[in-house]
Amino acid sequence: MPRAANNDQVPAEGGKEEETPSGLEKFLTLDRFPRARGEGMDVVISSRVRLARNLDERLFSNRLNAELAEAVLGQVETVLGQLEGAPWHFFHLEKISPLDRQILVEKHLISPQHAQDPTHRGLAIREDQVVSIMVNEEDHLRIQCILPGMSLDEAYLEAESVDDLLEAKLVYAFDGAYGYLTACPTNLGTGLRASLMMHLPVLVLTNQAGNFFHALAKLGMAVRGQYGEGTQTIGNVFQISNQITLGVPESEIIQNLKSIAAQIIDHERNGRETFLREGREALEDRVGRAYGILQNARIINSDETLRLLSDVRLGIEMGLVHANPGVVDELWMLTRAACLQKMDGRGLNPYERDVRRAAIIRGMLTAQPQEKREGE
Amino acid sequence: MPRAANNDQVPAEGGKEEETPSGLEKFLTLDRFPRARGEGMDVVISSRVRLARNLDERLFSNRLNAELAEAVLGQVETVLGQLEGAPWHFFHLEKISPLDRQILVEKHLISPQHAQDPTHRGLAIREDQVVSIMVNEEDHLRIQCILPGMSLDEAYLEAESVDDLLEAKLVYAFDGAYGYLTACPTNLGTGLRASLMMHLPVLVLTNQAGNFFHALAKLGMAVRGQYGEGTQTIGNVFQISNQITLGVPESEIIQNLKSIAAQIIDHERNGRETFLREGREALEDRVGRAYGILQNARIINSDETLRLLSDVRLGIEMGLVHANPGVVDELWMLTRAACLQKMDGRGLNPYERDVRRAAIIRGMLTAQPQEKREGE
Repeated sequence: MPRAANNDQVPAEGGKEEETPSGLEKFLTLDRFPRARGEGMDVVISSRVRLARNLDERLFSNRLNAELAEAVLGQVETVLGQLEGAPWHFFHLEKISPLDRQILVEKHLISPQHAQDPTHRGLAIREDQVVSIMVNEEDHLRIQCILPGMSLDEAYLEAESVDDLLEAKLVYAFDGAYGYLTACPTNLGTGLRASLMMHLPVLVLTNQAGNFFHALAKLGMAVRGQYGEGTQTIGNVFQISNQITLGVPESEIIQNLKSIAAQIIDHERNGRETFLREGREALEDRVGRAYGILQNARIINSDETLRLLSDVRLGIEMGLVHANPGVVDELWMLTRAACLQKMDGRGLNPYERDVRRAAIIRGMLTAQPQEKREGE
Repeated sequence: MPRAANNDQVPAEGGKEEETPSGLEKFLTLDRFPRARGEGMDVVISSRVRLARNLDERLFSNRLNAELAEAVLGQVETVLGQLEGAPWHFFHLEKISPLDRQILVEKHLISPQHAQDPTHRGLAIREDQVVSIMVNEEDHLRIQCILPGMSLDEAYLEAESVDDLLEAKLVYAFDGAYGYLTACPTNLGTGLRASLMMHLPVLVLTNQAGNFFHALAKLGMAVRGQYGEGTQTIGNVFQISNQITLGVPESEIIQNLKSIAAQIIDHERNGRETFLREGREALEDRVGRAYGILQNARIINSDETLRLLSDVRLGIEMGLVHANPGVVDELWMLTRAACLQKMDGRGLNPYERDVRRAAIIRGMLTAQPQEKREGE
């Protein structure tokens, strides 16, 4: 397993400005406040489903020589071009600069591993950005769908529909006894990983998170940082996903994660209510200070940003700060290192990045409606 | 020398609400943004001159029995009633509640020592509040004048004019060789203490303050906390005053303090310019965060308040925060413990005080024009 990238890494760039492949640019930018309000978004930031698939009669990606690897890329690109419905955009990762690849990681469109070694690897993005496919990552195909809020069923349906379209044109490696065959046995069977990105500030604050995560592991669930395996958890955001892919039908995997998530959501919400009831001023103080600092800082690093954004997100969800919740989730991504680099159009050193980050945050938060002040 | 009161003390009150003597109320409140802009107010908050005087043929205050002490009070009250010009208001300290006395300390109208033991002590305040007289403090009379900014000459003239009016009706203890006789020999001669309340955040930040104050001591100057001898220095505010009262004419004492102050002001201003030139972002960051926290905190203690107000005052003076400078100086006083108690009209515990303090700060800072944001 390759060592995962850390959370705030910017790839070293050569002297020349590398060009962004035509058609990719729009997937690197972020619409202003794009995020629709999904169900349960006070706790669940997003739902993700990914399916691992491999082509029959081909070696797994890590065994392919250059020619065969390129053949897989070509085959997938051709098939995607033939699909009905929303058009697909196909990119060879080698033609994407390290900086742009890192942005794709920060947008959760590819894994850190995929960005790190781009040789003979591909990325397909559906026009609406809801579904994307990594080609020649650990498996030939990793079809993934991300939707805001608690939308596991919808995300599974989207991924499955793409999977069905592809299966009509490709022969998958499939075994009658085991199911879909995958490069790593942990994905064997359904090839399905369903995960939820959850914001759990009060479970962390009240020291309940540790016990919860311990229990989750016993239930066959994994808890990870927001960029997947081996990444840090920051800003109280956790990715919770199934570990078991074999011997359980897809619907049960989804249902299992949903019912576990429901319990976590309940505890987080109850914790918030209790906090509001028993320590409203302390909570308002914490949230208010975070908001005030973000609106006024001139130099701010990534860790402090995420810590404060976590507080502000909590404040918004609890009605203590009157701002667009989308702005926090957008800032979460925009203020990541590679996105910052991209926005400025040149290489920034860490200090310059901290200054630029603060400017972006100030700009976006002051464009927001002012916090309504109560009791004065 | 009695032990000085600490900086954020609230006197314990009895169960009943004590009444404020008629006529005193207006001296306990603060006008909104009352402070005129004096010269040099970027560094000098206020100038103060006080004259120590004693009545001839009477024992010093600390030797007086009850009857004689009351006689002094009566004599001074009578004489003040006969003076031409702005009317005087005379109060017996014993009739003022501990809380109100503490507010008078926070407003610099009386010393902590005067508030602590009110027996047979008096306070006279001239209608315009510019001149006040403590009666039976260490000396029979302590005439003091406080003016905003660098106004030592004006403050001396005001105090001297009151002194002249009194001397026409009272016989002072005076010695041809020594000058005015005082209870403590450190005041002998002129009985004059001139002091400046200076805000020196950059001298502190750059670790120059210590050396400066060491040099000042050698020049016969004292550096103290803002409530005088034995009080803490907080929020980078220092009271700098002459130690020598004997053998030097009044004009020279004033001139001496002025020329020393000019050097301190120069260094503080140069430090600010350098900081702005070489670390503008760091300075804006510091000031911005302080302003953001003060505008948004829900619970804030006295020390943090003064530390942040110091940063905001610096920011206002350097044009980095666009707010009325008067509001900071006013908050400085309003958020002191006794003023807070008074505003709320009841006994507050320390937690309630921190909540109340935060509410007052938010209210006053959000009534201010918003900070102008540059470079965006």
